[in-house]
Amino acid sequence: MRVGVLCSRIRVEEKLLFAELERRGVAYERIDDDDVIFDLNEGRYEYDVVLERSIHHSRALYALKVFNDAGVPTVNTAYVADICGDKFKTTQALIRAGVPTPRTRMAFTPESALRAIEDLGYPAVLKPAIGSWGRLIAKVNDREAAEALLEHKQILGSYHHSIFYIQEYIPKPYRRDIRAFVVGDECICAIYRTSDHWITNTARGGQATVCPVTPALADLCVSAAYAVGGGVVAIDVLEAPDGRLLVNEVNYTMEFRNSIAPTGVDIPARIIDYTLDVARKGSVS
Amino acid sequence: MRVGVLCSRIRVEEKLLFAELERRGVAYERIDDDDVIFDLNEGRYEYDVVLERSIHHSRALYALKVFNDAGVPTVNTAYVADICGDKFKTTQALIRAGVPTPRTRMAFTPESALRAIEDLGYPAVLKPAIGSWGRLIAKVNDREAAEALLEHKQILGSYHHSIFYIQEYIPKPYRRDIRAFVVGDECICAIYRTSDHWITNTARGGQATVCPVTPALADLCVSAAYAVGGGVVAIDVLEAPDGRLLVNEVNYTMEFRNSIAPTGVDIPARIIDYTLDVARKGSVS
Repeated sequence: MRVGVLCSRIRVEEKLLFAELERRGVAYERIDDDDVIFDLNEGRYEYDVVLERSIHHSRALYALKVFNDAGVPTVNTAYVADICGDKFKTTQALIRAGVPTPRTRMAFTPESALRAIEDLGYPAVLKPAIGSWGRLIAKVNDREAAEALLEHKQILGSYHHSIFYIQEYIPKPYRRDIRAFVVGDECICAIYRTSDHWITNTARGGQATVCPVTPALADLCVSAAYAVGGGVVAIDVLEAPDGRLLVNEVNYTMEFRNSIAPTGVDIPARIIDYTLDVARKGSVS
Repeated sequence: MRVGVLCSRIRVEEKLLFAELERRGVAYERIDDDDVIFDLNEGRYEYDVVLERSIHHSRALYALKVFNDAGVPTVNTAYVADICGDKFKTTQALIRAGVPTPRTRMAFTPESALRAIEDLGYPAVLKPAIGSWGRLIAKVNDREAAEALLEHKQILGSYHHSIFYIQEYIPKPYRRDIRAFVVGDECICAIYRTSDHWITNTARGGQATVCPVTPALADLCVSAAYAVGGGVVAIDVLEAPDGRLLVNEVNYTMEFRNSIAPTGVDIPARIIDYTLDVARKGSVS
């Protein structure tokens, strides 16, 4: 078994994954994304599987595509990274699969984006199509905030910040949302992320407590995972005031350090189980 | 027949395409990408085909995906736009299809990019993965140029400029390259683009003269078009000093104003022929 792990900075998560591989006596090679050079013409890679843990979405995306094109299975696939790394693609995939998600509009100029926001109604949420850790996700409460933000995005952002992603705001009656972990066809655990801020990411101070994996939550999350191509993903779920569960985002190289203790689930062990299964099956998609 | 044309600024090309539609009595609707709002949840579009002529790659890409997801055929497909809009994806598609193309490396840091350049040898070519009209395409003749350029790309560019695309430089013995137009399964015409500058784009002063479409050129270009998913594309071909023809790029929303007179081929009529065929077939892919 030849396992590659694509990584950049070694975080708590990567240390836990390495320890799990070592515990099982599985040899692995760290592929440092700072150093690696891909020869697109000659590319042959002697791995049975590559586990992707880069902190750079664009590096992950291109590297996974090279591996998959060369016949190397990866966790996750390039397809999943492409969908989950782009909120438009995620939303479209969820809608096509019939998975409930907030109402979303797309526009290409500040003027049309403002019309789309006013049509959805305030407060609305503006997000960059590509980005992580809640950065640049903005709650827009009125027209003046909308006008100012749209102008800043257009003038200060690179071109892809002028593809405006506009979503209805779902109030959080319990000051929390849910992050659920799906590995293969199972929702293995979930946490509530509670915060006084409307953005609840644990990287931004949200508190993690265990969330029971009800059959409804498990069904929803596994459906969302399938919708984006499956694999090892973390699903962000909103509890709307009317009781609906809405899938908000799907993350494909998630951090999980804060979810092990509250849930009691050995997340790195489950990820390694799945990764070795993928290697044994040898399928790229 | 309901034809939509997605456009931004109306260039010579769009005027010619509109005139051709009018000459045939085909009703069409201009979809202005400055104004359009896509409702991702409810999207239904009453077009038999959408011809994409936006000058913005990212807008084109997202709009085509929405149309295709809603079952509307487009020229070109979202798949083709995704491959052709990204030089890594183009190169990988060409290599997978066995279409000759220059040797190419990918790296993620200035340090590894420098090693890749020195491994390929000077002069080398650095290109942004996403971009048009020859912008930011750089010929790198020595190590000092390489170091300076890599640093500028990393510090001044947005994140995707730190995915380094490094290609061998193919000398142009005749100070020219070839641009060939493929519509469906036919190479309809080609021009030489001649310039004293190593970048020969006609938008940058390259002179257009007719290039005979030999069977070898036609085969190569149709293979390249198929490799990226087919449709209406313009293939940039290099004539290497050893006589090989190498496909350099494939363009998916090309300008063609300077190619009509030298070749004597009514390019807009051929594009409209193809577009109406796609509408009649009704297939999204």
